[in-house]
Amino acid sequence: MRLHPAARQEMASPGTQRAAGCTCPHLSPHPPLSHLPLSRSVRVQWGYTNPISEYVHYSLFVNVSIVHYDSCLISFISLPPLLPSLHRIKASGLKLQLCTNETQATRESFVRKLRALGFDVSVAQVTAPAPAACHLLRERGLRPHLLVHHDLVPEFAEIDKTNPNCVVLGDAAENFTYANLNEAFRLLIGMEKPVLISLGKGRYYKETDGLKLDVGAYMKALEYACDIQAEVVGKPAKRFFESALAELGVPAEQAIMIGDDIVNDVGGAQQCGMRALQVRTGKFRPSDENHPEVKPDAYVNNLAEAVDIILQEL
Amino acid sequence: MRLHPAARQEMASPGTQRAAGCTCPHLSPHPPLSHLPLSRSVRVQWGYTNPISEYVHYSLFVNVSIVHYDSCLISFISLPPLLPSLHRIKASGLKLQLCTNETQATRESFVRKLRALGFDVSVAQVTAPAPAACHLLRERGLRPHLLVHHDLVPEFAEIDKTNPNCVVLGDAAENFTYANLNEAFRLLIGMEKPVLISLGKGRYYKETDGLKLDVGAYMKALEYACDIQAEVVGKPAKRFFESALAELGVPAEQAIMIGDDIVNDVGGAQQCGMRALQVRTGKFRPSDENHPEVKPDAYVNNLAEAVDIILQEL
Repeated sequence: MRLHPAARQEMASPGTQRAAGCTCPHLSPHPPLSHLPLSRSVRVQWGYTNPISEYVHYSLFVNVSIVHYDSCLISFISLPPLLPSLHRIKASGLKLQLCTNETQATRESFVRKLRALGFDVSVAQVTAPAPAACHLLRERGLRPHLLVHHDLVPEFAEIDKTNPNCVVLGDAAENFTYANLNEAFRLLIGMEKPVLISLGKGRYYKETDGLKLDVGAYMKALEYACDIQAEVVGKPAKRFFESALAELGVPAEQAIMIGDDIVNDVGGAQQCGMRALQVRTGKFRPSDENHPEVKPDAYVNNLAEAVDIILQEL
Repeated sequence: MRLHPAARQEMASPGTQRAAGCTCPHLSPHPPLSHLPLSRSVRVQWGYTNPISEYVHYSLFVNVSIVHYDSCLISFISLPPLLPSLHRIKASGLKLQLCTNETQATRESFVRKLRALGFDVSVAQVTAPAPAACHLLRERGLRPHLLVHHDLVPEFAEIDKTNPNCVVLGDAAENFTYANLNEAFRLLIGMEKPVLISLGKGRYYKETDGLKLDVGAYMKALEYACDIQAEVVGKPAKRFFESALAELGVPAEQAIMIGDDIVNDVGGAQQCGMRALQVRTGKFRPSDENHPEVKPDAYVNNLAEAVDIILQEL
């Protein structure tokens, strides 16, 4: 897959406006990949300032929220039609890492469900906020009070939770009770320097019975009440994507993020130096194409189209 | 009550720093009232740019949160010791208006409780957010979905609530369930132009069993999820204080706010052109004396001291 240097130049011309608030100097907004003069005969340079080897490994980040926008605890209703595309990625030899902000289940449970549905991945192929939070807690000697979904608690099994000196907030769903929120608040406000670690900052998500407030909304409630700022360890945090890249063993410029969330997937990956495609499925909204801060490197109509293009151009 | 013009001049000298963010040109921070050269023989001019008649009526706003910081639904534990001061105000002929952000009960219920405790006030003497919200709803033809305390619902008895086109948020307490918050969110996100009316923006408050998140925290959660800004009708909103002044029938410069909340009471009243005393009880924290944006016109140790000073100087 390659863009002709001249075509890249044209896209980055003064006529192309830079997305406000984006600080990545090497990234600029582009028309949909499908409109680009792709050629099998030349390998893509992606317009990076540092040229990449012609035989670069393209690692595909697949954001699980395009695999299923429903909670993985309830159903994987959107997964089956995507399986052929995922199998094609695997068969191509491309490395694949699933990046999810899912905090309603452990990675083990997540992988079990994927396998049951016919997609064989390992736990190491899943980057999720809870393990990132555990890493941070150990690093800083923090003992968390957990306000998370009960199915996520095992991820913190080996973390000392006595005499808490921070609060870890996940998408607690039914555990977001008045009593539990007050308890987390009281612990925070009682700390000399309140530390709130949030496993994401999503606004809302969709389940079979409708839209639900996501962890970000509750994070904002606690931030306001305590006059503090939470530390976010899920997408779009830089450390989250760095951890995924480390797991893959590839530099940012050799990885492609495919996601449906303009801020968490596309914006987060781009800020880490990756290129990112936005699929027009799941969370995608037509208004995303006019987002004031984030511009994907390309749009694709669905995962199958993204995989088609990438595999054709390898 | 009066400050000698020379003393006022001295207080407003360049050595006295203006509170950041305050836009009221005639208000400046002062040392505690008790430190001022008060004199019975001269009436206070309060340093306003427009001179006030010597025989001005001082109307006393008593913020109920200094009368009781506990929920009025549970107990009025702090009220009895304050009764003598409240009776003294009444006997002096000063007008009195209770300004509360209480949204866990109707004004009728609130007044009944005050009377049962020996303080006889009328419903008209209570300014509260719910009636202000009703006024706004009628004015704009809005039909609310209510996420409020069940004891407050009667305040909205005469408001059309069919086919909601806005959400009214109060301190719903136990009604702040995951399901109710999701329901309010879904209604908002489904509106072409979501309208969220909040009966206050307090961060938290204290009850006998500890600190509780206040309506402001939940307001922030919905604001973030829907990417909107709520309209606040309780303190410190300007329209709230204007409504209280209208009820009293006095201009702002003739009213004094006494409150324990540096932002909601003191800041709100000052922005409306009133002077405001902060009592060092209830919500008061020593750090309030270094608040970056709001400086009370004076500090008093408690309500009795405020009343002593005001009555002495009449």
